[in-house]
Amino acid sequence: MSQYRAPLDDIRFDLFDVLDVESVLARLGQTEVNRELVDAVLEEGARFTTQVLAPLNAIGDRGCTFDKATGDVATPEGFAAAYRQFVEGGWPGLNAPAEFGGQGMPHVLGAAIKEMIDAANLAWGNFPLLSHGATEALLHYGSEWQQETFLKPLVEGRWTGTMCLTEPHAGTDLGLLRTRATPNGDGSYAINGTKIFITAGEHDMAENIVHLVLAKLPDAPTGSRGISLFVVPKFKVGEDGAMGERNTLRCGALEHKMGIHGSATCVMNFDDAQGWLVGEPHKGLMAMFVMMNTARLAVGLQGLGLADRAYQNALRYARERLQMRALSGPKFPEKPADPIIVHPDVRRMLLTQKSLVEGGRLLAYHAFLNVDIAQHGADEAERAEADALVGFLTPIVKACLTEWGNECTSHALQCFGGHGYIAEHGMEQLARDARITTLYEGTTGVQALDLVGRKLLQLKGAGLRAFLKEAHAFCQREAANPALAGLLPDLVAKLGEWQALSEQIGQSASRDPEEVGGAAWDYLFYSGYVALAYWWARSVVACEGSALSAAAKEGKRETARFYFARILPRTLMHKAAIESGAGNLMTLTADAFD
Amino acid sequence: MSQYRAPLDDIRFDLFDVLDVESVLARLGQTEVNRELVDAVLEEGARFTTQVLAPLNAIGDRGCTFDKATGDVATPEGFAAAYRQFVEGGWPGLNAPAEFGGQGMPHVLGAAIKEMIDAANLAWGNFPLLSHGATEALLHYGSEWQQETFLKPLVEGRWTGTMCLTEPHAGTDLGLLRTRATPNGDGSYAINGTKIFITAGEHDMAENIVHLVLAKLPDAPTGSRGISLFVVPKFKVGEDGAMGERNTLRCGALEHKMGIHGSATCVMNFDDAQGWLVGEPHKGLMAMFVMMNTARLAVGLQGLGLADRAYQNALRYARERLQMRALSGPKFPEKPADPIIVHPDVRRMLLTQKSLVEGGRLLAYHAFLNVDIAQHGADEAERAEADALVGFLTPIVKACLTEWGNECTSHALQCFGGHGYIAEHGMEQLARDARITTLYEGTTGVQALDLVGRKLLQLKGAGLRAFLKEAHAFCQREAANPALAGLLPDLVAKLGEWQALSEQIGQSASRDPEEVGGAAWDYLFYSGYVALAYWWARSVVACEGSALSAAAKEGKRETARFYFARILPRTLMHKAAIESGAGNLMTLTADAFD
Repeated sequence: MSQYRAPLDDIRFDLFDVLDVESVLARLGQTEVNRELVDAVLEEGARFTTQVLAPLNAIGDRGCTFDKATGDVATPEGFAAAYRQFVEGGWPGLNAPAEFGGQGMPHVLGAAIKEMIDAANLAWGNFPLLSHGATEALLHYGSEWQQETFLKPLVEGRWTGTMCLTEPHAGTDLGLLRTRATPNGDGSYAINGTKIFITAGEHDMAENIVHLVLAKLPDAPTGSRGISLFVVPKFKVGEDGAMGERNTLRCGALEHKMGIHGSATCVMNFDDAQGWLVGEPHKGLMAMFVMMNTARLAVGLQGLGLADRAYQNALRYARERLQMRALSGPKFPEKPADPIIVHPDVRRMLLTQKSLVEGGRLLAYHAFLNVDIAQHGADEAERAEADALVGFLTPIVKACLTEWGNECTSHALQCFGGHGYIAEHGMEQLARDARITTLYEGTTGVQALDLVGRKLLQLKGAGLRAFLKEAHAFCQREAANPALAGLLPDLVAKLGEWQALSEQIGQSASRDPEEVGGAAWDYLFYSGYVALAYWWARSVVACEGSALSAAAKEGKRETARFYFARILPRTLMHKAAIESGAGNLMTLTADAFD
Repeated sequence: MSQYRAPLDDIRFDLFDVLDVESVLARLGQTEVNRELVDAVLEEGARFTTQVLAPLNAIGDRGCTFDKATGDVATPEGFAAAYRQFVEGGWPGLNAPAEFGGQGMPHVLGAAIKEMIDAANLAWGNFPLLSHGATEALLHYGSEWQQETFLKPLVEGRWTGTMCLTEPHAGTDLGLLRTRATPNGDGSYAINGTKIFITAGEHDMAENIVHLVLAKLPDAPTGSRGISLFVVPKFKVGEDGAMGERNTLRCGALEHKMGIHGSATCVMNFDDAQGWLVGEPHKGLMAMFVMMNTARLAVGLQGLGLADRAYQNALRYARERLQMRALSGPKFPEKPADPIIVHPDVRRMLLTQKSLVEGGRLLAYHAFLNVDIAQHGADEAERAEADALVGFLTPIVKACLTEWGNECTSHALQCFGGHGYIAEHGMEQLARDARITTLYEGTTGVQALDLVGRKLLQLKGAGLRAFLKEAHAFCQREAANPALAGLLPDLVAKLGEWQALSEQIGQSASRDPEEVGGAAWDYLFYSGYVALAYWWARSVVACEGSALSAAAKEGKRETARFYFARILPRTLMHKAAIESGAGNLMTLTADAFD
């Protein structure tokens, strides 16, 4: 079984030494969220995730069970009890506003807790995750009655939520959906249709389940501009919010998946189920994006958490497993062989993981911190800039951290050699679980199109400018810092190249819209790798005065050096691919691919 | 469920138009292996693999079952019957010499059949694969009695074989193994020990199982120079070769694995089991490498086969699945949405697969053709050069084709969106099955060390020279070919850079042996990508006069263009990593990785 240790030292380093969240939060008026409080929340989160959730991860892999006769879903042994503890600890409302029973903690702190939950038990983490999306939608678009009735129990965690978007023929393309909503005449609607891939659609962990359902009204325009959002509870609720009879919706089947077996992925059938319109008619897609953006950043954390857990285990194994001698001669002559961490290629795999995990953590936390700034910033300009930055970083965090999650869990498995393929070590579960993260909440390709088509071109790169402003200021400030001697010139050059490539894409896209798609994927990863170079340079500077141990500081410096030498050059291939244009993708006729 | 179509057109194109095997084989004296015969074997192989094996692939995923009481293993439904058909068809002895009942067909033809078997059903393919390794060991090192007794039934397929190398503490490092062989006084030995990860160690498909077991004699020197090879049958055999009583060895458990559930991965316990020494005492490692080299090239074909099957399904899905409109406007306005093959990023994933599959096929077949030349070449010089080339290409074929197998099955899964994660589509099985191939028969890191440490440095790059000679001759011959206008200068430059990098590594390794390991992985992939560029250029030239359809020719030309523009630039990052030296891997102390 794989083990998990909460990376509190690195989380604290990121929050306090690199991102300086104490000052930022104080500036945002959240003075009560001081270091002591943050530390206490982190400690308690670490305790809950490592002691309660992590031990259930392997059990969860055995899966949920479905009762065809009743449509009921039983979660794996221990999942429901762990959820009760989660509710008792007040975790569901960590980031929710106090007026709805939440604790109003900053999102950047929520991110650290979320990462630990996902690392400890991704499948379990999907149950509260989906509540979070529903909470966001109701916070932004719910009526007073809806907020009173549905939002409060969600924030308390007594009820959980879902996002019912996908249908068999409508995945990315929600304009194709067929679920219908017909007015009942009493202000409610009758919902009819089938949704698939509904995470936590049915389970035994909460009293009620609040489904946020995309459907079409009778007079809906065709396509994505004709979609409305409805709140549809498992158990009906009266005007007084009291739970009543069972609504006419049920789980029709559980999907058999590659991984996250403990997460109930449901086919949901709505058969004249009673629901209520959330927000305005035909404006459901906008509300959906509110849920989705939260969820996208959160899925990035899933990739990060799995990568970190995988790395911790690969590192332990590399220190323990004795095979062969170092190329430069025995390092432990008294042992029958050297530990495999002496081998350069094992170190290459370990450092790849370490550099992507620790760099990725900063990339993600920085995005979440800007969610806080976008909400509580002192003036409109600061809020708008932070909002643009979050928008720009969201597809990067989602896509990079999940693709790196796949890469890192695979490297970690590989460090175990043949043993990595055997279930009992738990490494293959991490790899299987990670594989979903580049698919749900928008595939990597969809993130790339969002980044280039919307955030770079439509929104004219405001988010990129905000990032570059910050990065350039750092480079100027640290121009003479000897700790960055081998790194800063590279970083400065890459930042300039990033801007130039962005402009280039804008120009080619204005000639041919296919160029957007032709460049998108490579541009996204190019951006991710340059952003990580920035965070590694920041880490090198920040570690000097930090509370990190001498070994950890050496780790930061050497990993930065490794990153610049061996990972950052991935930008070379992405740049070449972008510059080659869309022609080499688009010319071949669809019939000639065989 | 995933589907499989045998890629006969492309196989024929490779064999006849690119590699010109007819002329080569005629030159080697195998004039009877003409185009008609090869075609007939391919057709029959395609029939068997697509109609018999492919339909069993999903069933095989349910796994083998183990009877604790008896130690028996039952293979999935249909596996044993398919094996009987395989034996009746004469397939087990396809490449074996006629004097032992084989058909003496060239290895390059065997490779094409093997690829189809693995694509159709990897787990099933592991049963005959391991027989092949045992056959090779006995062919080279078996006594006359051993060949008469064990080799003939193996070639006929009545018996199957295994390679019993790994022990819990001895994977890559076989010098650590503890299995003992004690003389019985009658010329046989008593074998005692436990082996793990024994593919096809126990099953219900053949009358007897011939284990090739590495063990230590009582007077063995320590380390890998003290290992001997033994043949240890499941049922004892008398001097007359007749099968006798059950030998004292049995399967102790089946491993629970990420994939290839239909392949029985056994813990094997030898308890005074009777065996016979194969070859000389303490020279087992050499014999092991004979088995291993065959197996390594074969595992490369496993990666290739899975990648091809995955690609075929991704392509079908991309043509059928309707989601969103093309960026440049609807391509099928009469449909509710365009097929996803209109999207540049889907095309990027498809072309990545196509370029790695079709290029990889040539890389592999070329290596196998040189196995034939190394065996039957006209003179010693030709045989030696071919042998060096095979040695050089073996780690490249093994590592690249299996890593690309992981990459391609993952891209193919990704093309299915969320549906790729669901078991019923069969894509996730391909990804899980592929994951073993970079682990067994030497991990990717081990292949890389073999390539640089042994093939490049110890053997002074004879194999690389042979490859470059062939490639340079091609470039000179085709210097004025307009079909290569955009490609040849790049290829010539990369070939020169390859040679320069090779020399550079030799120089830095002479200063510091860790540089071998620091460069190995990146050098291996650098080599693979340049080699593939050569094969794509060859394909562009060869397709003109070939029997390929006009669409297939367009496919070759455009995929070559894509490959040079978007895949070959991966060499840029590998080159940068090599040139950065081993320091950025080796400096960090083992304690400071946390």
